[in-house]
Amino acid sequence: MRMFARDDIMAALDEQDAMAAVERAIVAFAQGKAQSGDAGHFSFPAPGDAHVKVAHLAGEEIFALKVSASFYANPAKGLSSSQGFSAVISATTGEALALFADGGWLTDVRTAMAGAIAARAIGYSGGTLGIVGAGIQARMQAGMIRRHVGADRVLIWGRDLAKARALADEVGGEAVADLADLVRASDLVVTTTPSTEPLVEDGWVRPGTRIVAVGSDGGGKRELDPRILGRATVVVDSVAKCLENGEAGWAARAGLLAPEAIIPLGDLLADPHAFAADAIVVADLTGLPAQDAAIAGAVWRVLASS
Amino acid sequence: MRMFARDDIMAALDEQDAMAAVERAIVAFAQGKAQSGDAGHFSFPAPGDAHVKVAHLAGEEIFALKVSASFYANPAKGLSSSQGFSAVISATTGEALALFADGGWLTDVRTAMAGAIAARAIGYSGGTLGIVGAGIQARMQAGMIRRHVGADRVLIWGRDLAKARALADEVGGEAVADLADLVRASDLVVTTTPSTEPLVEDGWVRPGTRIVAVGSDGGGKRELDPRILGRATVVVDSVAKCLENGEAGWAARAGLLAPEAIIPLGDLLADPHAFAADAIVVADLTGLPAQDAAIAGAVWRVLASS
Repeated sequence: MRMFARDDIMAALDEQDAMAAVERAIVAFAQGKAQSGDAGHFSFPAPGDAHVKVAHLAGEEIFALKVSASFYANPAKGLSSSQGFSAVISATTGEALALFADGGWLTDVRTAMAGAIAARAIGYSGGTLGIVGAGIQARMQAGMIRRHVGADRVLIWGRDLAKARALADEVGGEAVADLADLVRASDLVVTTTPSTEPLVEDGWVRPGTRIVAVGSDGGGKRELDPRILGRATVVVDSVAKCLENGEAGWAARAGLLAPEAIIPLGDLLADPHAFAADAIVVADLTGLPAQDAAIAGAVWRVLASS
Repeated sequence: MRMFARDDIMAALDEQDAMAAVERAIVAFAQGKAQSGDAGHFSFPAPGDAHVKVAHLAGEEIFALKVSASFYANPAKGLSSSQGFSAVISATTGEALALFADGGWLTDVRTAMAGAIAARAIGYSGGTLGIVGAGIQARMQAGMIRRHVGADRVLIWGRDLAKARALADEVGGEAVADLADLVRASDLVVTTTPSTEPLVEDGWVRPGTRIVAVGSDGGGKRELDPRILGRATVVVDSVAKCLENGEAGWAARAGLLAPEAIIPLGDLLADPHAFAADAIVVADLTGLPAQDAAIAGAVWRVLASS
């Protein structure tokens, strides 16, 4: 078993190849060709919590497990609050092949890739990109979407304007003080915050707006007024998980969204179709263990031959 | 994160200390002081299968995950069919501390320890020990029980008499050709085979016999005539798992054992009591993730300070 640190993994990531693997994983999941499992939620008095997820995509030579942990008192000890690692295991012999001590970086990357994949699938092909949030995922979504889909202009809003400005400087975008202005000006809005109250109001969303929501993944998180989903076409990575933990769940529980109207992203990728120019389309993403297996496999293929 | 090979782990195991930790884990589990989770069963066309389990014992500084995998075509490739590893993770910071590339050895050891702990708890204190099976677990149970509980005589039966003889030579015991003779002569019978048909017949079991059954853990496995459990006091490591996968399940489904009569081993360890000399007592063990966390923690405490 070989162990790789974050720098090795970053150097081994072929973004184009890994993104294609993540896209195949989303399709495989929708087609029932992914085995995945979750050992549940562990909580610790530290305070902290951890999840362990495992996935295998039919036909792949490896399967992967991922530990993701958040320990909120870590920064006071000089440690990142995000901890975790992935293990790559042979699906033909069961041998442990590699351990990726990436501290959650691959999860951030595959989440950004899923955002870019969804943005393209729901009909965004460049224009004005509005990013809601100014953290790691905001930076990654801005970069991934610009590199792989395109953006003429990148707008950034954050609760902390100074942080939004710093990120805007870093990515060559513009900080926006008023979130309503960002939403009204954007062709694609990407929400990346851990908010537990809706941030994006229904009245700000004009016809034709495309939204990718990646912040809400359980624990009471939500970023969108559910009425937006009520008048939008809603695409999700996992129907079950998004109804449980995503924006789709809030809208469905409010009686604004019929679960049977939700479109699995994997189905849309396998059989792409255009949306009306004035349609509002929301992609609600909570993340799939199959994506973790895909990106770990893509990195491992590079490292195994090195 | 430090990686340890099987030899390092074997050298670091303090059997007395680890066994005390495994015993505390069994008690903690029965008292609801263990968090544990299972990411489910993964199967592969190789053919092979894998399980990933995670556990934390309240108050412990670490939690542990364990991957156990069996790939049945491995021996033809010069590899063991048993694969797997454990990871030790800090329960105070979430940092990955150690990876134990033990290939399943710790699982074998904690299973043998649980057998010895159960043997003592159900009132065996030495005498004639009869081992059913001649594989790794047979060897380990013989050794662990003799070292930690005692045995004047060790009898071994295996489907393959030559294998039973080889093991008997190794552990200083006697191979027995007829299983009925072994059962009739033993104060404690330990069953360790992957049989899917009952091996031990009801008529062979005399009053006062104590039985520890470790072979049956799902997949249709069973070693005891269920009528034995029908007239025995039945002790289990996990009521739910033993009713699902153990000997207790076969007896309960046959209407021979009332689930409410089953005694959790952890309760018996916390509040020991003697059984009548002529009572038949069966300990049915399917294994607990809490035991994996306990033995990994015990080994890690030694390695961390080395």
